[in-house]
Amino acid sequence: MTQTQPLDLDALATMSGLDQLMAMRDGLLPPAPIAETLGMVNFDGEHGSISVELDPELRHYNPLGTVHGGVISTLLDTAAGCSVHSTLAAGEGYTSLDLTVKFLRPATVDSGRLRAVGTVIQRGRRTALAEAQLFDGAGKLVAHATSSCMIFS
Amino acid sequence: MTQTQPLDLDALATMSGLDQLMAMRDGLLPPAPIAETLGMVNFDGEHGSISVELDPELRHYNPLGTVHGGVISTLLDTAAGCSVHSTLAAGEGYTSLDLTVKFLRPATVDSGRLRAVGTVIQRGRRTALAEAQLFDGAGKLVAHATSSCMIFS
Amino acid sequence: MTQTQPLDLDALATMSGLDQLMAMRDGLLPPAPIAETLGMVNFDGEHGSISVELDPELRHYNPLGTVHGGVISTLLDTAAGCSVHSTLAAGEGYTSLDLTVKFLRPATVDSGRLRAVGTVIQRGRRTALAEAQLFDGAGKLVAHATSSCMIFS
Amino acid sequence: MTQTQPLDLDALATMSGLDQLMAMRDGLLPPAPIAETLGMVNFDGEHGSISVELDPELRHYNPLGTVHGGVISTLLDTAAGCSVHSTLAAGEGYTSLDLTVKFLRPATVDSGRLRAVGTVIQRGRRTALAEAQLFDGAGKLVAHATSSCMIFS
Repeated sequence: MTQTQPLDLDALATMSGLDQLMAMRDGLLPPAPIAETLGMVNFDGEHGSISVELDPELRHYNPLGTVHGGVISTLLDTAAGCSVHSTLAAGEGYTSLDLTVKFLRPATVDSGRLRAVGTVIQRGRRTALAEAQLFDGAGKLVAHATSSCMIFS
Repeated sequence: MTQTQPLDLDALATMSGLDQLMAMRDGLLPPAPIAETLGMVNFDGEHGSISVELDPELRHYNPLGTVHGGVISTLLDTAAGCSVHSTLAAGEGYTSLDLTVKFLRPATVDSGRLRAVGTVIQRGRRTALAEAQLFDGAGKLVAHATSSCMIFS
Repeated sequence: MTQTQPLDLDALATMSGLDQLMAMRDGLLPPAPIAETLGMVNFDGEHGSISVELDPELRHYNPLGTVHGGVISTLLDTAAGCSVHSTLAAGEGYTSLDLTVKFLRPATVDSGRLRAVGTVIQRGRRTALAEAQLFDGAGKLVAHATSSCMIFS
Repeated sequence: MTQTQPLDLDALATMSGLDQLMAMRDGLLPPAPIAETLGMVNFDGEHGSISVELDPELRHYNPLGTVHGGVISTLLDTAAGCSVHSTLAAGEGYTSLDLTVKFLRPATVDSGRLRAVGTVIQRGRRTALAEAQLFDGAGKLVAHATSSCMIFS
């Protein structure tokens, strides 16, 4: 039961980025509000690589009848940004400078569960570059993104 | 009252892109589902330029305490893509190939209403390039995006 | 005649970015080596906006018979980066983090003189965003770019 | 000896993209003019992946004393675009729609030979996405790029 007690800010400041993210996965920290709003599930990962999933619903659609590019971008931004987050030492922070998304294939409610997988390509002292790939339920590549982040203390 | 009757698909196919978007604005076509899910408002525009707005809420947040980059991307993708849509002749369609977002300033619930304004930079026969700017309530630039679209018949 | 004497490094360190660039334009500083290698001409501008030109030659071509995308990227990177450079105070430096180029129209030796015009979209304390447009001799938009830069002291 | 005779246009039209590129590598087709202008060497590869190299020289420099971002972009654009070219069937053509470059580390004449390696990430009927990585002589990642291409018959 003590496992599910929320962590306080003092505890948070002494944790590495990966420990913070795993605490969020394990319910010791509240989930990201946007994750709840859109229905992201199965947040998980390791140092340098974070993944998150989503079951497409009609409420995610654009007027063209497919999952809106912004929802796809949200999944990729989450996977890429959190991958960089997972490399932070205690006391470090980060901010995303950009997100470049390539839409390769439409996604619909028939696509199965979407899975975004982020990976850190480069980690410098002040900057980091991550990429993220979004796969549909059949394992086909739906979209690809890169994101540059700035690291600060 | 007849104004608020929904349009059927046959009618839709004979309308220009701008007429379709203005019908959506006027409630003659249903709004984009993602627009309702996230709370976009004030969809409007003209040939080559579409804007949309959103009041930031806590449910739009990332774990860092600001509006998630994916929500910002969704607003920019909507403004850019719909700007291209507004240039379509009856019978033409489009698909977004990419979205490149630059995050310039964090947005929070204290930012005031966010306003995304899209503009078509180039319109060829088979491709189009649009940019979009996102402003906060004080008129400061929060983010910038470009998006390439493919046009088809 | 004293006008054409090269500036020394001590002098350089006390100049604003714009003064440095205008000294380069006026021959008081040597031109960028790449500008000579590729044949860039008419480097000029003001605070926040720098332009440069190039007459397409066969030696700029790719195997497809048009000006190589890398040459187009070089012009856009120069215009965008130098636009940011033109906003630097004495003692500040910058580095380009990225360059996103959209190729809109092929350029050839028949395109006339190409003109790249950069503009700073946003200038923060630590980052800046610039865009650049490349026009052909007829004023048509050949390519578009955005570039994020990091500012340091 | 007959091996070194240039191929004529009729022969070219019946060759796959990879055969065309390998003919260029083997001197049966003239090299890309920009490759000679900048000094690219060791063009090589296979279906879906093309690499090219360059020894940094002072003439490649920007005014900041490092290899100009445009030269880096040219190497990445070549590797990415040719990787897509290598997947073309006889009679197919392609054009690059964009190039997104992330500059990760400065390159100088002390960096050793630069090596750009392109890879096709996705190949559809009408579009393709490639990425390219640029390594220095020590194998460190200097820059990264993605490029979307349009395929046509």
